[in-house]
Amino acid sequence: MKIKKLKPLLIKIFKKHGLNADHATISTNALINAELVGAFGHGLSRLKMYCDRLNKNVINPKPKIKIKKISQSISHIDANNSIGFVAADIGIKQAIKNAKKTGIGLVAVKCSGHYGLSGYYAEQAVKKNLITMIYTNAPPAVAPHGSLKSLFGTNPICFGTPSGSKIPFILDTSISMINRGKIRVAARNNKKIPHGVALDKFGRPTIDAKKALAGVQLPIAGFRGSGLAWMVDILSGVLTGGNHAGKVKDPFDDFSGPQNIGHLFITFKANLFQKNYQQRIKENIKIIKRLPKVKGVSEIKYPGQNKYKRFKENSKKEINIPKIIKKDLEILLN
Amino acid sequence: MKIKKLKPLLIKIFKKHGLNADHATISTNALINAELVGAFGHGLSRLKMYCDRLNKNVINPKPKIKIKKISQSISHIDANNSIGFVAADIGIKQAIKNAKKTGIGLVAVKCSGHYGLSGYYAEQAVKKNLITMIYTNAPPAVAPHGSLKSLFGTNPICFGTPSGSKIPFILDTSISMINRGKIRVAARNNKKIPHGVALDKFGRPTIDAKKALAGVQLPIAGFRGSGLAWMVDILSGVLTGGNHAGKVKDPFDDFSGPQNIGHLFITFKANLFQKNYQQRIKENIKIIKRLPKVKGVSEIKYPGQNKYKRFKENSKKEINIPKIIKKDLEILLN
Repeated sequence: MKIKKLKPLLIKIFKKHGLNADHATISTNALINAELVGAFGHGLSRLKMYCDRLNKNVINPKPKIKIKKISQSISHIDANNSIGFVAADIGIKQAIKNAKKTGIGLVAVKCSGHYGLSGYYAEQAVKKNLITMIYTNAPPAVAPHGSLKSLFGTNPICFGTPSGSKIPFILDTSISMINRGKIRVAARNNKKIPHGVALDKFGRPTIDAKKALAGVQLPIAGFRGSGLAWMVDILSGVLTGGNHAGKVKDPFDDFSGPQNIGHLFITFKANLFQKNYQQRIKENIKIIKRLPKVKGVSEIKYPGQNKYKRFKENSKKEINIPKIIKKDLEILLN
Repeated sequence: MKIKKLKPLLIKIFKKHGLNADHATISTNALINAELVGAFGHGLSRLKMYCDRLNKNVINPKPKIKIKKISQSISHIDANNSIGFVAADIGIKQAIKNAKKTGIGLVAVKCSGHYGLSGYYAEQAVKKNLITMIYTNAPPAVAPHGSLKSLFGTNPICFGTPSGSKIPFILDTSISMINRGKIRVAARNNKKIPHGVALDKFGRPTIDAKKALAGVQLPIAGFRGSGLAWMVDILSGVLTGGNHAGKVKDPFDDFSGPQNIGHLFITFKANLFQKNYQQRIKENIKIIKRLPKVKGVSEIKYPGQNKYKRFKENSKKEINIPKIIKKDLEILLN
């Protein structure tokens, strides 16, 4: 479907489910962006879930979002269980405003929901010549190191910076070795999963996808990745007033209440300390790209390059909508 | 040797090599702390190196350190090639001061050197009820993903927070799969190294320690760890005015000039958004510790617990000084 046809359709659906025009547009843009960068797990496949949660009022369609000013640099947002896209959009915009004014912005958000891709918000800050760090937690998916039970979310770590070129440097990385969707696909096709990404229900390493589904996913790099996931849970949950320690509900399965996810946005001017920051980062990237390469590697890419390329290519094409999602669209429109 | 005997000895050595009493004490305390937490690679084994660099003036014994105030929250420090311990001590203290005043501190340091353990500085901030994030770069040790040549340092990521108990939560993690010292030991003893931690000089995975020494160490988690190392290089080098993109000199091997390492200290009040932060983090840790455990694991530990335990235990004992370091001490005293 052409983007310009899909966009009003999605806006209509969100409005039908109670969002105002502004919030419907923000949510639509985020979903379409996810499709264009190829992050389908954050795109249209979630539309029905969002609408179901709006229907059941575990996402508040008419939130009263409060922005509390703590200082010129620091703000605290209570998103009143709004759809995550809107809370995050307000969060990053406030963080940008604060950094533009004082050099640095720190914005904590509580009572939010799943907001899609951290990198999408990071891009907004980077376009304003800011460096940004973004943290959010998520429903249990990964076992803390030494544990037999999932508790941490895939808790992404996101870092963005201007790159001295039009393609921003955006690292947006999960701390999980593998995502659950991939294990599900492997189980369905009777395929093995890689070594070291999951444990069975007894806590033994397994490459059997079915056994992994009954067990837990592992964090990257053992104790270190587990520590990073814990850090994200603290920064986005404990600090902000959001849920933490495994209490964020799965948006697909648990309609017993709002998610109360927390987010943290840190922003600061890239040229705070060096006027020629853009030149310096450009030089940094150039030197790394010139290193001798492992056989089969044609280019050393910085984080965000692949996503940018996919976005550019896909923006020229129609968006491919699988049958199951077409059906969702029809139902949600009626 | 008893700590109270070792301490004046080290101060004497540093003073003999040109440091003033204050700088000698700061440097001594950092070295002894590294010994006590069991990070011997950052302890007495580096004393001779520091003295050699002071002798050759590639560490400036009498630095004129300038602190530039950019705002109440933001400072830029030119450490004038001081010994790293002193630059980092001034850096974290300034970051603490800024955060105490405005809620948040951002301090960039340039023209510094190796400062030992990030966690040592994080502890200072955590004791003042601040959350802190600390970044520093280091000489080339790790190959960017897809490259055949080391460029990133072991570039630690450090995060510290009050934990609601006397043992601080301090994550201080390298982004390298293995440290070079361990590969050296394995090569000497004709032992294998684990799968997936290094490449040979042709870029092929190897478990042969000798081949790994001729090749490169790998970042944790492939592209993701490589991205994290790159982030640290940007935050501590590109942003601050320090060296970056592989230009930090090896302190042991390269006396052709100062290292010009950069550091970044971010600090903010833990109770900015939630008055009961200490209770919240205590609850978070309690829930995670109660999870069912993998067989053989008796306790799920948070980052910093092991180090704290070693510190407490070792503080009661004498510090064991290997013969080779005893010899260093004798030479450096004369």
